[in-house]
Amino acid sequence: MMRSKVLSLVARAGSNRMMSTATKLTTVEVNDKTGIATLTMNRPPVNGLNLELLQDLKSSIDEIESNKSRGLILTSSSSTIFSAGLDILEMYKPDKDRIRAFWTQLQDTWLALYGSSVPTAAAINGHSPAGGCLLATSCEYRVMVPNFTIGLNETQLGIVAPQWFMASFLSVLPQRIAERALNQGRMFTTEEALKVGLIDETANNKEEAIEKCVAFIGTFAKVNPLARSLTKQQFRAADLQQLQNGRKEDLEKFLFFVNQPAVQKGLGIYLEGLKKKAKKQ
Amino acid sequence: MMRSKVLSLVARAGSNRMMSTATKLTTVEVNDKTGIATLTMNRPPVNGLNLELLQDLKSSIDEIESNKSRGLILTSSSSTIFSAGLDILEMYKPDKDRIRAFWTQLQDTWLALYGSSVPTAAAINGHSPAGGCLLATSCEYRVMVPNFTIGLNETQLGIVAPQWFMASFLSVLPQRIAERALNQGRMFTTEEALKVGLIDETANNKEEAIEKCVAFIGTFAKVNPLARSLTKQQFRAADLQQLQNGRKEDLEKFLFFVNQPAVQKGLGIYLEGLKKKAKKQ
Amino acid sequence: MMRSKVLSLVARAGSNRMMSTATKLTTVEVNDKTGIATLTMNRPPVNGLNLELLQDLKSSIDEIESNKSRGLILTSSSSTIFSAGLDILEMYKPDKDRIRAFWTQLQDTWLALYGSSVPTAAAINGHSPAGGCLLATSCEYRVMVPNFTIGLNETQLGIVAPQWFMASFLSVLPQRIAERALNQGRMFTTEEALKVGLIDETANNKEEAIEKCVAFIGTFAKVNPLARSLTKQQFRAADLQQLQNGRKEDLEKFLFFVNQPAVQKGLGIYLEGLKKKAKKQ
Repeated sequence: MMRSKVLSLVARAGSNRMMSTATKLTTVEVNDKTGIATLTMNRPPVNGLNLELLQDLKSSIDEIESNKSRGLILTSSSSTIFSAGLDILEMYKPDKDRIRAFWTQLQDTWLALYGSSVPTAAAINGHSPAGGCLLATSCEYRVMVPNFTIGLNETQLGIVAPQWFMASFLSVLPQRIAERALNQGRMFTTEEALKVGLIDETANNKEEAIEKCVAFIGTFAKVNPLARSLTKQQFRAADLQQLQNGRKEDLEKFLFFVNQPAVQKGLGIYLEGLKKKAKKQ
Repeated sequence: MMRSKVLSLVARAGSNRMMSTATKLTTVEVNDKTGIATLTMNRPPVNGLNLELLQDLKSSIDEIESNKSRGLILTSSSSTIFSAGLDILEMYKPDKDRIRAFWTQLQDTWLALYGSSVPTAAAINGHSPAGGCLLATSCEYRVMVPNFTIGLNETQLGIVAPQWFMASFLSVLPQRIAERALNQGRMFTTEEALKVGLIDETANNKEEAIEKCVAFIGTFAKVNPLARSLTKQQFRAADLQQLQNGRKEDLEKFLFFVNQPAVQKGLGIYLEGLKKKAKKQ
Repeated sequence: MMRSKVLSLVARAGSNRMMSTATKLTTVEVNDKTGIATLTMNRPPVNGLNLELLQDLKSSIDEIESNKSRGLILTSSSSTIFSAGLDILEMYKPDKDRIRAFWTQLQDTWLALYGSSVPTAAAINGHSPAGGCLLATSCEYRVMVPNFTIGLNETQLGIVAPQWFMASFLSVLPQRIAERALNQGRMFTTEEALKVGLIDETANNKEEAIEKCVAFIGTFAKVNPLARSLTKQQFRAADLQQLQNGRKEDLEKFLFFVNQPAVQKGLGIYLEGLKKKAKKQ
């Protein structure tokens, strides 16, 4: 896979030197002092997870794994959207080959993030529905800015969140709350999310959210990194294994479902609504 | 299976027209306005779950599944008992064939209720021990009237709640609380049940309990029914599969246990106690 | 296995007659009135879990299982340490045969305690890191004296707590809290432990802690012991089975890990630190 990368040293007044790399749709900045990498999604306007953003996310996670970063903080360049989730255009009247590549990449990206050996935290600085919530709940810690919403709202769109979305959700929420929210396609406000444990802390803005993520990653300062990583992977082994063993089946299930006329019709109506909304603004 | 059914259109002053069907021991009323079915257990005096009530429950659940109801509310015609659980008379000095049919029917009824594609809620308008608690925790939501008790109290009777009773309980309660309560055979008051999450809300009376169940089912108004149903079934697949794969084993385990002389003796003493109690009243 | 045992009848002023037996490193006192056995670890200075203490614990658990005790309360003879966990000397530059026996014994002791048919409670009258926390969370109830700490801090020592430590932890804590604490190697104060549910109650001193454990075991007074024991074992079956099925693999995994030069070096540094600390005091 060919990707253009920009490697640069950024010196900012009053801040620590950062080593920064960028793919087309993500940037990675490693703080020189803390050794923590900030991975920023940058696909305007809503960080819709299309094939290319998912590829870039995976590459950036791999890079952070291999460059000895002390942690990974996932955030967004948008001021209102963390990620709007899977790009509907990938699923509506899909190209046969591309949709296979798209879903396979989503699997790969999740396996890399959920199973990452590095401490992970999400600075949720905007709305975070569906795939956005998946990314956030795949991290070990979540700090969220007020007045946004987060949740797996797939059923509202007529889609079924696959089993591993459910696993990420269940790693954070009690079963009773997780099942009901997923059935309802419920979006939680920042305050509601804090109350049920879907997020761990709130922060007034993105900067403060990142600071709190840095503080969380700092709790591992005295911990042996190898022992930590093996412990985390042992905790998540069953969830990761379940997808790894059933990747093909999971792909076929998705393709079958997404190609149902009723689902295509629903996605079409949804897209039409988005277009009208955009025209009005 | 032959069952007498009464189909009638009921028009009540000040209420919505209801389509109502009845088996011998259950009634189903579908509210014309909301499209929600109320399934009422009606086997006086305590809705003891015998073979026939379990059969009627299963038929009524199937009917609600197939008649396009928007939800199922399970309640009782008694003013003090939701369901007293499995009918001890089915287990004490049992007929060899009937007890097999009884347990197999219990399995079928649970599989239908726990795995129902329709949103389910229990309006718990009376005491709900053992099998009564199983029915309630197999629904997705529970509203309970004060001054009653609910719990899996099998160990108090010298019986072991099978693995799938445990699964229903665990779908609602944290493991630490669920295990301890099941070991103790603990009955929770309405207030205690609310505190630990065994129920979701309280209501002053049956009518209000049903209203709150209707409101819960209303949260699915904008949700795609197929996506909702597949999501729920995915959440419950492991529990349902476990019984489906082990039905014979589960039946034999129950038969072996219930036929132990010590268990039969215990049931006999319990029945004797019930008779004395009844005489005093 | 040869063990010297002392059997004696102890009559104390103002207390109930106790039947007491002792192994070299543990004592078992059965209260004549309550029928509850107190199992005291007595390997000064810190109840380090070496091969012999683990053997004696297993023998004492077996004894309590077979002498018809109504419950088991695990506590420590030390006034500041419940148990400091696995004896590092068993793992540092280990003898090839002894370390196999040591780990196999740890497995056996855990299987016996976690799977015990008798109601179990821990009176945690001192610090309880790592293996100490494993023993405490393998019981059904925990009462802890203030100003001590408890947790699985293996990652702080560069060690990975095996899957069954994790299972015991998860039987008590929600997944989100359990995973994070295990990754951090977090030690909880008595107050923090109460808040998250890692312990169930606090008590001002050991005597009061034991009283509260007695009260917990008393909640089973009206429960059929066989039904209770089968119910508990059904709850814990999956966890127990996982180790039983993978004992050899678990042993080899431990041996491989503990013999890593980096781990040996870490243990050496840790032991050196302990020696310096001891000299200063």
